[in-house]
Amino acid sequence: MRTGIATVCLSGTLKEKMQACAIAGFDGIEIFEQDLVTSPLSPEDVRKMAADLGLGLDLYQPFRDFDGVTPDLLKANLRRAEAKFKLMSRLGMDTILVCSNVATATIDDDGVRAEQLAQLAGLAGDHGVKVAYEALAWGKYVNDYEHAYRLVEMVDHPNLGTCLDSFHILSRDWDTAPIEQINPEKIFFVQVADAPKLSMDVLSWSRHYRVFPGEGQFELAKFMGHVVRAGYTGPVSLEVFNDVFRQSDVERTAVDAMRSLIWLEEQSAKWLGDNAGTGTDGAAAGGAAHRRRYPMELATLPKVNEPAGFNFAEVKADDTAQLERLLGQLGFGFEGRHRTKDVQLWTMGQARVIINEQAASHAEPSIAALGFDVDSPVIASARAQQLKAPVVARKVQADEEVFQGISAPDSTEIFLCQGSPDGTAAWTHEFGEGLEHARSALNAVIDHVNLAQPWQHFDEAVLFYTSALALEPQPFAEVPSPSGLVRSQVMETADGAVRLVLNLAPVQQGHAPKTYQEHIAFAVDDLVAAARAARSRGLDFLEIPANYYEDLDARFDLAPGFLATLRELNLLYDRDADGEFLHFYTATVGSVFFEMVERRGGYSGYGAPNAPVRHAVQYDSLHR
Amino acid sequence: MRTGIATVCLSGTLKEKMQACAIAGFDGIEIFEQDLVTSPLSPEDVRKMAADLGLGLDLYQPFRDFDGVTPDLLKANLRRAEAKFKLMSRLGMDTILVCSNVATATIDDDGVRAEQLAQLAGLAGDHGVKVAYEALAWGKYVNDYEHAYRLVEMVDHPNLGTCLDSFHILSRDWDTAPIEQINPEKIFFVQVADAPKLSMDVLSWSRHYRVFPGEGQFELAKFMGHVVRAGYTGPVSLEVFNDVFRQSDVERTAVDAMRSLIWLEEQSAKWLGDNAGTGTDGAAAGGAAHRRRYPMELATLPKVNEPAGFNFAEVKADDTAQLERLLGQLGFGFEGRHRTKDVQLWTMGQARVIINEQAASHAEPSIAALGFDVDSPVIASARAQQLKAPVVARKVQADEEVFQGISAPDSTEIFLCQGSPDGTAAWTHEFGEGLEHARSALNAVIDHVNLAQPWQHFDEAVLFYTSALALEPQPFAEVPSPSGLVRSQVMETADGAVRLVLNLAPVQQGHAPKTYQEHIAFAVDDLVAAARAARSRGLDFLEIPANYYEDLDARFDLAPGFLATLRELNLLYDRDADGEFLHFYTATVGSVFFEMVERRGGYSGYGAPNAPVRHAVQYDSLHR
Repeated sequence: MRTGIATVCLSGTLKEKMQACAIAGFDGIEIFEQDLVTSPLSPEDVRKMAADLGLGLDLYQPFRDFDGVTPDLLKANLRRAEAKFKLMSRLGMDTILVCSNVATATIDDDGVRAEQLAQLAGLAGDHGVKVAYEALAWGKYVNDYEHAYRLVEMVDHPNLGTCLDSFHILSRDWDTAPIEQINPEKIFFVQVADAPKLSMDVLSWSRHYRVFPGEGQFELAKFMGHVVRAGYTGPVSLEVFNDVFRQSDVERTAVDAMRSLIWLEEQSAKWLGDNAGTGTDGAAAGGAAHRRRYPMELATLPKVNEPAGFNFAEVKADDTAQLERLLGQLGFGFEGRHRTKDVQLWTMGQARVIINEQAASHAEPSIAALGFDVDSPVIASARAQQLKAPVVARKVQADEEVFQGISAPDSTEIFLCQGSPDGTAAWTHEFGEGLEHARSALNAVIDHVNLAQPWQHFDEAVLFYTSALALEPQPFAEVPSPSGLVRSQVMETADGAVRLVLNLAPVQQGHAPKTYQEHIAFAVDDLVAAARAARSRGLDFLEIPANYYEDLDARFDLAPGFLATLRELNLLYDRDADGEFLHFYTATVGSVFFEMVERRGGYSGYGAPNAPVRHAVQYDSLHR
Repeated sequence: MRTGIATVCLSGTLKEKMQACAIAGFDGIEIFEQDLVTSPLSPEDVRKMAADLGLGLDLYQPFRDFDGVTPDLLKANLRRAEAKFKLMSRLGMDTILVCSNVATATIDDDGVRAEQLAQLAGLAGDHGVKVAYEALAWGKYVNDYEHAYRLVEMVDHPNLGTCLDSFHILSRDWDTAPIEQINPEKIFFVQVADAPKLSMDVLSWSRHYRVFPGEGQFELAKFMGHVVRAGYTGPVSLEVFNDVFRQSDVERTAVDAMRSLIWLEEQSAKWLGDNAGTGTDGAAAGGAAHRRRYPMELATLPKVNEPAGFNFAEVKADDTAQLERLLGQLGFGFEGRHRTKDVQLWTMGQARVIINEQAASHAEPSIAALGFDVDSPVIASARAQQLKAPVVARKVQADEEVFQGISAPDSTEIFLCQGSPDGTAAWTHEFGEGLEHARSALNAVIDHVNLAQPWQHFDEAVLFYTSALALEPQPFAEVPSPSGLVRSQVMETADGAVRLVLNLAPVQQGHAPKTYQEHIAFAVDDLVAAARAARSRGLDFLEIPANYYEDLDARFDLAPGFLATLRELNLLYDRDADGEFLHFYTATVGSVFFEMVERRGGYSGYGAPNAPVRHAVQYDSLHR
């Protein structure tokens, strides 16, 4: 699959954008006109730079408001087009995107449109240019890709074809199956963009909220499957207008973009395999049927299943005393130090926490790394690296387990570990040589981990965990806090064995203390007992206001004794149709705190109604 | 008018919110339940604190999902309500907001709803509580204020009335005139919120994009006029869910909120005066008719007309040499120093620029102040101060002109100056004693000033200039730049004599250089001549890329000689149905640059199509 990206997706100057695209490994780019017009580079400079960088110049865009106009305007439009065709010749480019008319069309007549497009195609032919005509979702008269293609067929000129853009098609909920009926020689270009499903006017949605494939909710693999079945073999190019990407680091965004295409390519192949025989081509069956039947080569990736569980969580600090005390109070046992590194292992049942003492001096305690149990660490690592995840190197001795590590968008280190049927981990033997290990009787596991995401990398993180670790994004929630709304995105496995919560914390004011923290939650079978034990060990609980329990009682009509227990132990409570949820939080050290939870019945949430209480109490303790 | 605000409008803890409301001068507050539930303050603490702060506790809210439910759920809802009524008694509160059911209603029958609301009213009566029933815009069955009022009438119980919320009414485009038909004794509460007109689902619009009155596009004065005509005399309280306000400084947001109500009160009185005799009350005429006929007292403000023009602009710097050179090259003449202060006066025609040398050491050049010509500086200052604008004090000698100054939300100092029919300013005689003033022959004025706004104070700035200076906000635009989209809001007078452009610059990345600047634009009669003269004096123009001129030619088909002149002098060009616009920019010093413009015909814009070019070239020069 030939990969491409429009320069408008990225921040910076045209030169910076082109360099970033080359670094990220794109085959070609679309030149967005404004990027050229505002650039000090001449068309010849751009052509040479693209050649030097190994980037194809695949599409010049956009040419607006051409068709369905009065004769006077047509003349001016043809003059304008010719100027652009000449410019393209200097750039060495041969394809231009012409969007259906939004502003200046006054004649709603396919005959007139076809006649005018025919004139444009003729002029384009004189200059060796191919015109890719696209229906904008908000086109005045033409807003449907099938309509645009009918016009292309009517004109029937070798220099006129169509451009298919997933946003313009899927935002309008047009059926994508008829794409297969399009003559592949008439598909001059394919653009892809994902988007969250929003209920707003389609122009604003398009201009601000597009995201890269895998970061939104469109069925892009299906869209691409139909495109491949149609027989298209040209570039598949990202055109994503996004306010955040336009502000973010250009090289990093380009890599995120490339990752999305690599993932989409795999997903498209998978869709074709899963849907062999359902298309209009009458293919019988077979997982790789598309490879035989369709000319577009779709690369695949090393396969990964969703992780079976958390292998460990790692926190780091310069001074680890507070972390050690908290874990001990929660019921964790100290399993000793590593035989060669300055790290400690603490366990409670199958929940393993590593305390890393190698942090920079004066570093506050923070979450540093997570380990996930996967079928094959090597295959998972290979996949992640093909998805352009940065590799994390850890020094190991010859006889120690090698951890395959990658860096998540928020810099948390992700280790891909060999799971075991009984939930143990072989590497723990590297700790506490000579120590007697008094295994905790508690049946405890890491229930979920909550990570704060920088606003620039939130969408990138969703794609990262989706593509590299096969976690499924859930619908996002917004939680009120005293310093603003916290956007909260759950990523989890189907069986709930791995649950990550990505939180986008509010932008901080200049002098405000850091008001957003991260945490690790442990699940136990009997939270009340665990809380009592922790209290007896002197745990510093997050104090829950009395008002909360009155409201809880008003909402749930709890048994008085149970309510008293909750109140006594600073426990929070939630209930839904599937079950019940009890939990408590510890005080925060540095930017880390811990949670203990008990899930009763089939409760699969996170106590979201209680999150505002936590945020408020944490804020209050920081501002007191 | 009794002023109020819901605690949910503000950031921080309940205690911080209440203190900020008292400082801003509100009469009362609405307690948003979550703020109480998450607070360590007991209900008795809150009651005492409110009394100490002089704040009424006017409304407890929200009570959700009560009506149209099954008998079982009704029983649970009544139990839940009674718990809240008891809580209110501890708070010393007597009014609760009950929203129309969104989630749990299953019975769409007014008889059933009325019967259930009657039970609630009876229970409320037992506890001395008044229930204000409100139709949410997205209520499952009840989403229209007239429907909610019909239910109140059906129940006909002294403890059941309605709550009117401008957002829920105006977002649905309900006709507001029938408000006048509501029995005022049945209007238990009135909430106001403004909003930009957005095309999106009403729930998201409501939860994220509400703004304070005067910051959006709703016809709130008309809404309030109908409320006053109905005979309502209770609190008028802000309920504004806004992502930015929730993150911003609590005291500052509370003052912005209070300003919006003071302004709305005046606008409502004005609407009543302008529309006397049009109501259903049959009143004849007369500007202050409402004062005689309706019990609500509406305070007015000192009147201000829109300013007649810019009196001056002031830039400041530690080292002023670069500013002096730029102004001199543009054609400004040095008019001397002030006789007692370290400031210089430079003029070109009627454009006056003060260079203030009193900046902090190492301060980069920046825009410090603007002077506006008003009918009466004292009245305008009194108005601004009643609108809670901070006063700026300037030292003056006994025989010098006293400038009435206020501070804009972005800290620009705004001076209210006595205009003169011939455009001169008396205070200029305080400069250059003994110097001969060679008045420039140029007919030049300050055309517009472009100020960068911090994101936290953008809406506040719109209200500030609207309310204190009678500038009119225009529809906002978004301009692409290499570091993101720049939101651009024009505020101007009807005659265009004063034009301010408020730009919300993209959030900066950690280490990026400052990529957004502010500028002052001067209008002249002959821009080509002015540019040639400036070039002869060695002006450092912002260099416009050659690609721009090729695109310009493609778009406008300009005469070759004219195009060559534009290119030669780095001039930008725009044209619309009303006229033409020529302009050029200088290089930037510190965070300031200058623009010179020529308006031909009735062109009233700012060359918006050229703004991306400016942003790109400025970005490029900073990143080179």
